Amino acid sequence: MQFQLHTTDTASAARAGTITTAHGVIETPIFMPVGTVGSVKGVSQQQLKDEVDAQIILGNTYHLYLRPGTGILEQAGGLHKFNGWDRPILTDSGGYQVFSLAANRKIKEEGVVFQSHIDGSRHLFTPENVMDTQRTIGADIIMAFDECPPYPSEYGYAKTSMELTHRWLARCVQHFNSTEPKYGYEQSLFPIVQGSTYKDLRRASAEFVAGMECDGNAIGGLSVGEPEEMMYEMCAHCCEFLPADKPRYLMGVGTPWNILENIALGIDMFDCVMPTRNGRNGMLFTTQGVINIRNKKWADDLSPIDQGLDCATSRFYTKAYLRHLFISSEILGLTIASIHNLAFYLHLVRQARQHILAGDYTTWKNSMIPILKQRL
Amino acid sequence: MQFQLHTTDTASAARAGTITTAHGVIETPIFMPVGTVGSVKGVSQQQLKDEVDAQIILGNTYHLYLRPGTGILEQAGGLHKFNGWDRPILTDSGGYQVFSLAANRKIKEEGVVFQSHIDGSRHLFTPENVMDTQRTIGADIIMAFDECPPYPSEYGYAKTSMELTHRWLARCVQHFNSTEPKYGYEQSLFPIVQGSTYKDLRRASAEFVAGMECDGNAIGGLSVGEPEEMMYEMCAHCCEFLPADKPRYLMGVGTPWNILENIALGIDMFDCVMPTRNGRNGMLFTTQGVINIRNKKWADDLSPIDQGLDCATSRFYTKAYLRHLFISSEILGLTIASIHNLAFYLHLVRQARQHILAGDYTTWKNSMIPILKQRL
Repeated sequence: MQFQLHTTDTASAARAGTITTAHGVIETPIFMPVGTVGSVKGVSQQQLKDEVDAQIILGNTYHLYLRPGTGILEQAGGLHKFNGWDRPILTDSGGYQVFSLAANRKIKEEGVVFQSHIDGSRHLFTPENVMDTQRTIGADIIMAFDECPPYPSEYGYAKTSMELTHRWLARCVQHFNSTEPKYGYEQSLFPIVQGSTYKDLRRASAEFVAGMECDGNAIGGLSVGEPEEMMYEMCAHCCEFLPADKPRYLMGVGTPWNILENIALGIDMFDCVMPTRNGRNGMLFTTQGVINIRNKKWADDLSPIDQGLDCATSRFYTKAYLRHLFISSEILGLTIASIHNLAFYLHLVRQARQHILAGDYTTWKNSMIPILKQRL
Repeated sequence: MQFQLHTTDTASAARAGTITTAHGVIETPIFMPVGTVGSVKGVSQQQLKDEVDAQIILGNTYHLYLRPGTGILEQAGGLHKFNGWDRPILTDSGGYQVFSLAANRKIKEEGVVFQSHIDGSRHLFTPENVMDTQRTIGADIIMAFDECPPYPSEYGYAKTSMELTHRWLARCVQHFNSTEPKYGYEQSLFPIVQGSTYKDLRRASAEFVAGMECDGNAIGGLSVGEPEEMMYEMCAHCCEFLPADKPRYLMGVGTPWNILENIALGIDMFDCVMPTRNGRNGMLFTTQGVINIRNKKWADDLSPIDQGLDCATSRFYTKAYLRHLFISSEILGLTIASIHNLAFYLHLVRQARQHILAGDYTTWKNSMIPILKQRL
């Protein structure tokens, strides 16, 4: 994997770059749609390419390990072959889902024992076997196995947890380096900074992570309930100690304005379920602001969902029709809202990149945020 | 509307024709996907064109009248403008849904009083106002308001019901002829033959319907629970007394083999929720037979859903991936199965047409039916 840094904004830490992977090029800053079990919910692979123009999608190791399982993924030749997505894929390590979804999880030095949320079966995730699982999934970018402490966490717990994450990281790196890709193309490992909301822990973690000299670095444990200002403070602090010549990935963030603010702090990569999950609830992010499409006011609005986007779906369907689909519980409504929201997120990061390259990112961002936040 | 009859099969009553409407040409025999509330469930308008190649879709007057309502449909300039489907649309009369879905329905000479299944509100459908509603929806083909008796029905009830349907039909025709299209293009009215499973009633009804000299004629009240052989017998009997120079539409039918058998009896048009509804339950109709995609046997089958179809979705996704989507309750599974089944139905009627034109329809049909019926 190669990362080329083209420009850093003069008035902020925003950067425009290019990541080159075995499955193609990613222009940063980038947003990665979440394809939990190998499908971005409600959106076909063709729509992801043609309508959303996604450059990379995310898969969840926890979900894919449980269903369909590594056997069929290996038989298919990896997730790309299994789901027909031939652009880059990043997989998380499963740590976050083990802590948020699984039952009876028990953290030990060796790893985490848990029960499947589907059938109660018992499993063990270790730094080593999670590397193996992601090798088998065939992700272009593999995430280290970490513990993600909740917000708020006591200092003592946050520190102990971070230290465990660091010991696991060392094991991840060693196991990753001692194993080969399964399908003939290169995979990259990204470690994850933890440390909850404590600046000294975040610095220590960022320095430890930076010392691993991986292809890119991630910041985890944010956007878990803390105030937005605290997220920005922690993110900025981490970025200070993460190398500038590697891509920086802020996990699980966030709203459109969160993304623009974090780009300004030096983040290159984002993922979040918000565009698809909120879309399925009828919440649309548009170039003019936020829409609750179920609202009565859209019942006779025959204007396109968003004329400001270069997305056929957003221009073809009207607000009145989309509202009708939601009110009538039609599946197509979920699909249209998901495609639109994802297309909007991708549009937003493309715009951000253009403004970074043009040298006016901060001005543009400050003018955009009030528009993006307004409720229509 | 114009109907041109190209060929009638020598060994059967199968016909190949062309219907020309204001929104384009329909090659018969044809299958019409059902777009209940103005959306074919789970399938986008673009997919309906590009993947399914639907030539005409159906809308349900009962559903569209209740939601989104005629106000917004008129404001949009009709359903074509509201849902973005610019090819032909046929609307049923609402009669069938009033009898199957609505609460506290009461049949009177004037029409039917019923309560909405959505909010319990009271409404009256009459032959006249149902014509007005369909004028407002802007369908290319409008159906007469009829009563659809259940199976089985006593002879006396079937006869009384049929006579009411005939009196309503006369009122429909008179009101239709005394009103104008709302959006500047021509609309056609199709009357409906009833008579339950009684040959003398079916003949009387077909002769009454034929006497109306409408642009096309429909057969209703079949595929409501009677044995298949009885459906074929009634259909053949009706076709005998319906003019050959008008399209014949068999409402609500059916399985792939039902369609091929009824084409052989002289039917030109079909609609059915089966491809979409069964698709959403994981039942796939393919060129090789019927598949229950949830079955364990497909878990590691990495072959395309159906290589025999000229449909990108059916060739792109594998059985193993589609099964995974169904087992994981992913929305995309419903969409893929619906697209595939509809594409298969359209493929089937296209093939039927080619064999009618080639003169070997009956031989082909008899060789196909055992294949279509087999469980894979």
